[in-house]
Amino acid sequence: MCLSQLVIIALLLSMGTSKPLKQDRPSCGYQSCPQGKPGMLNVHLICHTHDDVGWLKTVDQYFYGANNTIQRAGVQYILDSVIQELRHDPKKRFIYVETAFFWRWWRQQHDHMRHQVQKLVRDGQLEFIGGGWSMNDEATCHYNDIIDQMTWGFRRLSDTFGSCGIPRIGWQIDPFGHSREQASLFAQMYFDGLFLGRIDYQDKSKRQKTQTMEMVWKASDDIGPAADLFTGVLPNTYSPPAGFCFDTLCDSVPIMDDPRLHDYNVNERVDSFIKIAHEQAKMYTTNHIVMTMGEDFNYQNANLWYKNLDKIIKYVNEKQKNGSNVNVFYSTPSCYLYALNQANKTWPTKSDDFFPYASDPHAYWTGYFTSRPSIKGFVKHSNNFLQVCKQLDTLARLGPMDAGDVSVLPLQVSFLFQLVPIPLAVQKIPGRVSKATSELVFNVKLPALGFSTYFIRKSNKFNTGCDIANRWKTRLLREFHLSNGIKLPVKQSFYWYNGMNGNNSEAKFRASGAYIFRPNGTTPYPIDNNVTVTLVTGPLLNEIHQTFSPWISQVIRIYNNTKYAELEWLVGPIPIKNNIGKEIITRFDTNLQSKKKFYTDANGRQVLKRVRNERPTWSLNITEPVSGNYYPVNSRIYIKDDSKNIQLTILTDRSQGGSSLSDGSIELMVHRRLLYDDAFGVGEPLNETGVDGRGLVVRGRHLILLNSTSVAGKQQRELSEKVLLQPWLSFAPFSGSEYEWAKQFTTEYSGLKRPLPPNIHLLTLEQWKGNSVLLRLEHFFEKTDDPRGLSKPANVSLKDMFTPFNVVNVTETTLGANQPLRKASRFAWNIEHNSTRTNVNTGHQRDAPTGPEFNITLNPMEIRTFLVTLNDSVKQLKSIS
Amino acid sequence: MCLSQLVIIALLLSMGTSKPLKQDRPSCGYQSCPQGKPGMLNVHLICHTHDDVGWLKTVDQYFYGANNTIQRAGVQYILDSVIQELRHDPKKRFIYVETAFFWRWWRQQHDHMRHQVQKLVRDGQLEFIGGGWSMNDEATCHYNDIIDQMTWGFRRLSDTFGSCGIPRIGWQIDPFGHSREQASLFAQMYFDGLFLGRIDYQDKSKRQKTQTMEMVWKASDDIGPAADLFTGVLPNTYSPPAGFCFDTLCDSVPIMDDPRLHDYNVNERVDSFIKIAHEQAKMYTTNHIVMTMGEDFNYQNANLWYKNLDKIIKYVNEKQKNGSNVNVFYSTPSCYLYALNQANKTWPTKSDDFFPYASDPHAYWTGYFTSRPSIKGFVKHSNNFLQVCKQLDTLARLGPMDAGDVSVLPLQVSFLFQLVPIPLAVQKIPGRVSKATSELVFNVKLPALGFSTYFIRKSNKFNTGCDIANRWKTRLLREFHLSNGIKLPVKQSFYWYNGMNGNNSEAKFRASGAYIFRPNGTTPYPIDNNVTVTLVTGPLLNEIHQTFSPWISQVIRIYNNTKYAELEWLVGPIPIKNNIGKEIITRFDTNLQSKKKFYTDANGRQVLKRVRNERPTWSLNITEPVSGNYYPVNSRIYIKDDSKNIQLTILTDRSQGGSSLSDGSIELMVHRRLLYDDAFGVGEPLNETGVDGRGLVVRGRHLILLNSTSVAGKQQRELSEKVLLQPWLSFAPFSGSEYEWAKQFTTEYSGLKRPLPPNIHLLTLEQWKGNSVLLRLEHFFEKTDDPRGLSKPANVSLKDMFTPFNVVNVTETTLGANQPLRKASRFAWNIEHNSTRTNVNTGHQRDAPTGPEFNITLNPMEIRTFLVTLNDSVKQLKSIS
Repeated sequence: MCLSQLVIIALLLSMGTSKPLKQDRPSCGYQSCPQGKPGMLNVHLICHTHDDVGWLKTVDQYFYGANNTIQRAGVQYILDSVIQELRHDPKKRFIYVETAFFWRWWRQQHDHMRHQVQKLVRDGQLEFIGGGWSMNDEATCHYNDIIDQMTWGFRRLSDTFGSCGIPRIGWQIDPFGHSREQASLFAQMYFDGLFLGRIDYQDKSKRQKTQTMEMVWKASDDIGPAADLFTGVLPNTYSPPAGFCFDTLCDSVPIMDDPRLHDYNVNERVDSFIKIAHEQAKMYTTNHIVMTMGEDFNYQNANLWYKNLDKIIKYVNEKQKNGSNVNVFYSTPSCYLYALNQANKTWPTKSDDFFPYASDPHAYWTGYFTSRPSIKGFVKHSNNFLQVCKQLDTLARLGPMDAGDVSVLPLQVSFLFQLVPIPLAVQKIPGRVSKATSELVFNVKLPALGFSTYFIRKSNKFNTGCDIANRWKTRLLREFHLSNGIKLPVKQSFYWYNGMNGNNSEAKFRASGAYIFRPNGTTPYPIDNNVTVTLVTGPLLNEIHQTFSPWISQVIRIYNNTKYAELEWLVGPIPIKNNIGKEIITRFDTNLQSKKKFYTDANGRQVLKRVRNERPTWSLNITEPVSGNYYPVNSRIYIKDDSKNIQLTILTDRSQGGSSLSDGSIELMVHRRLLYDDAFGVGEPLNETGVDGRGLVVRGRHLILLNSTSVAGKQQRELSEKVLLQPWLSFAPFSGSEYEWAKQFTTEYSGLKRPLPPNIHLLTLEQWKGNSVLLRLEHFFEKTDDPRGLSKPANVSLKDMFTPFNVVNVTETTLGANQPLRKASRFAWNIEHNSTRTNVNTGHQRDAPTGPEFNITLNPMEIRTFLVTLNDSVKQLKSIS
Repeated sequence: MCLSQLVIIALLLSMGTSKPLKQDRPSCGYQSCPQGKPGMLNVHLICHTHDDVGWLKTVDQYFYGANNTIQRAGVQYILDSVIQELRHDPKKRFIYVETAFFWRWWRQQHDHMRHQVQKLVRDGQLEFIGGGWSMNDEATCHYNDIIDQMTWGFRRLSDTFGSCGIPRIGWQIDPFGHSREQASLFAQMYFDGLFLGRIDYQDKSKRQKTQTMEMVWKASDDIGPAADLFTGVLPNTYSPPAGFCFDTLCDSVPIMDDPRLHDYNVNERVDSFIKIAHEQAKMYTTNHIVMTMGEDFNYQNANLWYKNLDKIIKYVNEKQKNGSNVNVFYSTPSCYLYALNQANKTWPTKSDDFFPYASDPHAYWTGYFTSRPSIKGFVKHSNNFLQVCKQLDTLARLGPMDAGDVSVLPLQVSFLFQLVPIPLAVQKIPGRVSKATSELVFNVKLPALGFSTYFIRKSNKFNTGCDIANRWKTRLLREFHLSNGIKLPVKQSFYWYNGMNGNNSEAKFRASGAYIFRPNGTTPYPIDNNVTVTLVTGPLLNEIHQTFSPWISQVIRIYNNTKYAELEWLVGPIPIKNNIGKEIITRFDTNLQSKKKFYTDANGRQVLKRVRNERPTWSLNITEPVSGNYYPVNSRIYIKDDSKNIQLTILTDRSQGGSSLSDGSIELMVHRRLLYDDAFGVGEPLNETGVDGRGLVVRGRHLILLNSTSVAGKQQRELSEKVLLQPWLSFAPFSGSEYEWAKQFTTEYSGLKRPLPPNIHLLTLEQWKGNSVLLRLEHFFEKTDDPRGLSKPANVSLKDMFTPFNVVNVTETTLGANQPLRKASRFAWNIEHNSTRTNVNTGHQRDAPTGPEFNITLNPMEIRTFLVTLNDSVKQLKSIS
């Protein structure tokens, strides 16, 4: 751990909430949906805009429409414009997805406009779909982030629109692949269905032919039917059919319906539309189909879309008089889903996930699993910090979030170090400059949900690590010793793939870029032909410092009291002088007989089995043998040898792409620097540089576990939690005596009265409203992780759980905290091999917290969400500042 | 004259007029204007859009927003969008200019919208400025076209909006130079003022420094004060100040005024705006300035503009509390003009014109005087045809225009030819294919405002022209014989300039293109080193057929009974194989001592004196010695030698660029083909090709008059009228006897009971409403043309003027026919050398038509416009079909 400067934290919470409109008779639910016509092909037009919450420019630039030379996008105008259109015609509908933008807009509106919007929402004309703060990516996000951001968005909507502000539909139309855990979480948020835009081109082709574009996704083996989620794949990602994009950003020919003018084109356009509708209907099973009428940042001038769609609806439906059976109308994803549900059909199921995503034979979107590794690291770091802030905010009881303005929360939780200066972290690496010359390492035992204060004084008495350079026999990691005494040869080293150059004019000329991973060749180049090593030993840990090249070094760190090895690597600036972009991997090679199988996590939670060169649901034609086998690794990747009863697990500190390209081998991509754009929108090569113009340097860690398979599940689950939420360090200068400090301030504290069961994690503790807090507890083991031990159900009593306050009331909610669980329900679907129609998705009804102690039980992988009312008269925490 | 096929003419007249809203208390006039604040710098924001009525795509494509890959422009959305904005805020204003677009839009609206628009117009929020069918170019348009298109637009507006639909302001913001005749016509349309966007960069610079950007333009020596017009040059052409363009088509940073978000920029933007306002104020003389807030096809989403301007107004005016004297508000050009008029200042005057227009030292916009010579010829031809149609429509009395639908008007006015087959027009020129092998030439005397029928039978008895090829001594025109017997050496030949190639990255790299004429060198290359000639003689005319090259030929035609020579040239395809663009001129060289002076017409009407390398109002720095001396020639160009008392006049059959680059010389550019774009928006080189991909071939005529100066004026005026409005030929097969035809149909007819005075031209005769027709008579001589003869005033009695009907009532109107003259008035302005404030512009009050005969007097260059009520019971013209 490194000394760092005093951290002053600004936690900005939102202002500007407003009370929801009194709802006399809201018609925002399914009952307001257009019904279509029986026996006709009913075409649901979904007017929508896809507004990235930050992509080529910042969120605020997108909101205001600044920096438009980069992208012509101003979300404020979308909402301005759409609201006007909806007000003028009750038949028109629109969906809005990204609450980050809606909230910025809403805060700037006057009451008059707010009331109009509330009416539109209540009448079902404006419907929130998705509704999270953003539409998160599914490959690289941790479930802690996903739940938080969805909850944050949901809450803004519920506070503003009451029950009409509860989104019913998951809307993941732009993520590059889809995770099983995301579906599971969405099911637990009580979405009735999920729509996807992008799935693998081979998968899509097969599904179109077999009419399996719509299915029930069985998203969790542990949770069962409660994690089942109806999932539909949209016909044209999220775009309109070709020729029917009517936006300032589109070039489709408008509907020109004045016969007195040139270019009258109604007949031609209507015929084209009807033909497209019939073609599309062949790929789906009901007499309802959906067309997404919008694209990125569309509807900045909603009139273009609506004026032309009005004409489409008018003229296409007029053809019914002449025998056409196409019936087209404004709709929403929820109304379309409702029609599907009403169809009372039996649906196919799916139990794997939608990774990796390829859009053509040479465009595997597996590069972005690793792209921008610094930011990916920072995201994990930020989540860690955010959870600390939320917990402290709750424990300190600074005030309810929607009344107070907790803008600056100084944290001064300090640690007294056992100083272990190791002047040799610090080995001089050319071009790397730091003022830190020492590291302090010492053991501490921290109270749960609390803090400890340590005082550090300068001294000459510390143990100094001793350098035994050049005495190590080999320069690379060669062998691991298992705890049971078995030795396993493990070679670890770094390699680079040549990133493919290309102009993207055809699929075969696709370049490796920010999204796409496309190595020029299948064998990576080793970077270990001139490794130098230094050994550092001490009473608490031993370190091996390896230098692979001027731009790659690594510290292998073995703590005396842990069962894992820590590999801290430092990679960059990746050299590009030879005009070759490079993608750097770390690879572990063993003799384990992994039989093509390897395992990766989904969003840091459940684990999925991967089989090299195979997909579970279709016969794979593998055209990119390396990148086509890459999968997202959010927290862990492992291989097993069942005959040897050994599992090699690597825990990551951030999301990375990884694979096992040969038996016994695991590789993770740690950094990339490329010289060509991949032409999927970013518009520039992935060539991150610092302010000095040099390529970015990235530091990260891998924790290596080598275990018998029987204990591997337990160990990796426990260690992974520790990697995710580390103690937060903060520093303050202080010149008085320790005694004086301790007299004035609390120096050690735990917010918990007693430890939680070892398989239970306090996932969320944050201020909610008034005297209530949001509490989430999760069982973080899968059934198979430790079947006879920690995978068993666990019991918790909420009543006296917390030190500073008593729990006086508990309301269990859906995962997104926007509906009381007792009132929540979801659509029922008939699925294959289940001939009777049952409400498969509602799943098991959990027992409400029981008794005066609010006792609850948590089953494997279960997350339970509570709004907890606190006793107001609790003793306040002594000042910590 | 060539035989051509039967012509079927479709005259499409507009449908869909609606009654103007009843106007209780219209506040559309100057009284509704925002007043500004005394002592402050008042900034008038003019929200406007400049919508070319056809430019890079067709008018209907522009209207609907089709073909948007060429230009992102859909005018329907502009009007949709602006109307919504105006309805929501009575402070907002907008001007609309091009009635061609407005009318397309208006016809598609329902009554509800029409009433809303009528209210906005009545309240002054939406104001029509300019108001013609389009904003015509001023260099290449004939005054007949200008008057017609303005009248057509005016009428739509008046019919729809009553007096609130009368535009008060000329708005010529995009023409490339400005003509004195246009100003004169606008004054006679009773515009209170005119605003210009583009004037020569040297002129503008001087005017900015001397605060003479605003002036009174004395636009006619003949008409005097009635043709004076207040004229203002806008500060930024028609664009907003740099950094303040808030449109979907612009990239200015929006006003970001939410202090809770990043990028808050109100202070910086407001300071910039105030600075710009003060800088601009230095160039103008009052405490009112104007900012044009719009560009080409802006306001397709008006919300962008208005939302940001609202913020500008709010935050800039808030600064007044802190001592700022800048006061900004929504306004219109008329309100700005009103403020100038109220300022009671004395204004400078101008009596010349604004040609040629240069935007930088190497960008003289004199190429477009000739560009697309075929279209320019077709325009003249079309006007000729249109006038014939209007006259026939009136004489035939098919019904009032706003009730009837005169869509097909077959003309079968035929001519019996004295057949003169001249098999040798027909000389074989490589690559030129025609089925016509003969020409028929014969003399006819046509009745005024009427028609004659001639029968043609095939015969062998016709005189045949006789070929005396190779007996002519010289191959070029060398000499002209004056009517008084004097011989003048005149050499005529063709030359080409190299068009400059360039990438336009800097002014000096400007290419010659569709707009810009920039020859690479000042001496054109002759094309007469291998001329072959053929002579053809006959009883009516003699012809000399010259072939200059495979792509240039010419027929010099001398009619036995005329005093002019006719040069019919055929130019093209201009060869570009050597990758050099070429600009072809015809040049006449004489020994006349023209002393740097030459004369060109303005829009085919008044004539202006030009002096080589000089401008009347500033000291010219001539950086392009050829193109900087080019002027538009709509109908005539001439030079004089006062000592010899000789004038050489060339009449053109279309608009062309012309000059006199050395004494005694006249040149006219007849065709151009260029290989580089000039980067002023066209986006392609001027390289017109036919369907076969070959360069375009252009045929045209020059009429050459060589006279004593004393009769030159009379002759060129009379001949010019004949060139403008030629007999319209139409053909029909007929197998019966001439007698049978004549029994059934009228074969000869004149609509006039007696000839008009020889200096009076029937400019307009067209159906108006009910029983009324629009009648314009003009005196087509300037005072100086024939001072003792035809330049004298002339008298006409309207009562019994026409054969088929009696005039029962006459209302004289302004030139645009949208206001009774007796009710019309204009602003008065104090001008230099006129110390007392007088209503200079209202000019002389003309006598109303007097007596039961409706007698009127026309003075030189005067046009008088009448709405004439006809006696309904007149005898109908016998069927002509």
